Amino acid sequence: MPRTGRRPGPGGTRDKILAAARAQFGKLGYERATIRGIARAARVDPKLVLHYFGSKDGVFKAAMEFPFDPAEAIPQLLAPGVDGLGERLVRFFIDVWDSPAGARAHALVRSIVASDEAASLLRDFVRREVLARVAESLEVPDPQLRAGLAASQLVGVAILRYIVKVEPIVSATPDELAAWLGPTLQRYFTARDGDHRGLPGPGHARGTDRRRKRPARSA
Amino acid sequence: MPRTGRRPGPGGTRDKILAAARAQFGKLGYERATIRGIARAARVDPKLVLHYFGSKDGVFKAAMEFPFDPAEAIPQLLAPGVDGLGERLVRFFIDVWDSPAGARAHALVRSIVASDEAASLLRDFVRREVLARVAESLEVPDPQLRAGLAASQLVGVAILRYIVKVEPIVSATPDELAAWLGPTLQRYFTARDGDHRGLPGPGHARGTDRRRKRPARSA
Repeated sequence: MPRTGRRPGPGGTRDKILAAARAQFGKLGYERATIRGIARAARVDPKLVLHYFGSKDGVFKAAMEFPFDPAEAIPQLLAPGVDGLGERLVRFFIDVWDSPAGARAHALVRSIVASDEAASLLRDFVRREVLARVAESLEVPDPQLRAGLAASQLVGVAILRYIVKVEPIVSATPDELAAWLGPTLQRYFTARDGDHRGLPGPGHARGTDRRRKRPARSA
Repeated sequence: MPRTGRRPGPGGTRDKILAAARAQFGKLGYERATIRGIARAARVDPKLVLHYFGSKDGVFKAAMEFPFDPAEAIPQLLAPGVDGLGERLVRFFIDVWDSPAGARAHALVRSIVASDEAASLLRDFVRREVLARVAESLEVPDPQLRAGLAASQLVGVAILRYIVKVEPIVSATPDELAAWLGPTLQRYFTARDGDHRGLPGPGHARGTDRRRKRPARSA
């Protein structure tokens, strides 16, 4: 798996900066956190933060320990076109979780479910770096919704397979998961209005403003 | 939403029993926890535990605060048959999360992601009470896997919509979600071998032993 950021330097300076960065991003959010503030919290010179991570975005990505670099992986997955994209994404996602990077993915899921701050940071990151890239490549209505639906299927299978560990999802092979989940994602990416609704019947929102009827929600 | 167990009694006895039950089930697991042990931890007579909750299973269900009673809800959802089952399940699931019980669902997700003990308790409960009931109603190969895949799509959309709060999944209407996700679940429930693989091509597992090739996994 590609890693963001450089290899650890001597004396754990890099780790000190990352710990400070996690605290600053969590407390202030991405926009208000600064290289200068992170350096101050880590008791190092701001130049050292830039030396290790290049930019605020660089230190953010390294601090988040996202299990792969979307700027590298997503364009590669999109390059062959939308044909077979669903299956490619499923295989890539399962590969990441089955690799040593799966431990980082697991830690990331724990932190976002436990903390609204972590959820907010990850949400912005995933929207910008993952979902927006996928949505851009889709030439259909509602590309962001479709990218989000695909993400929901991938996140759900990761939760059941790696975190809650529900059989027989745990012992299904990557091939089997790709065969079942690939067409689900592919439908989200490519179905045209009329065929994407699948089950005709009363009560659906066809032709209406879909954002209109959102009920108030507690919790 | 139906609730498991009786209304709170005076003096918070019921709540004391539930707190003790959560600790006992979390520490010992369902099998090893006992009514007697729960009563001792709550400093009440075991008869009182039975008075409030009827059985170990009853106190377990109440302690877990599952947001609906599967013994009641699942047979109702299955009763009309497999036609339209996918859409009925999506609508029911979204309704639960959009209702006041959504707060309990949220708390449950937090506790299972944070704790392996809670995950193990919930896994057994969901397998027995939810997935087994759904799988029994499916007259196709691999019914447990199919029920698990359906659960994975529902869990994933709940994580993105209610916990991480990713747009436009958050503001999609229940109708829109039912129209997109209903056919996904329906395919998992009803697709026959040959059509459920969807995307023909090399590298899939058709005709091979699907359990065979599970790779070793770290993390």
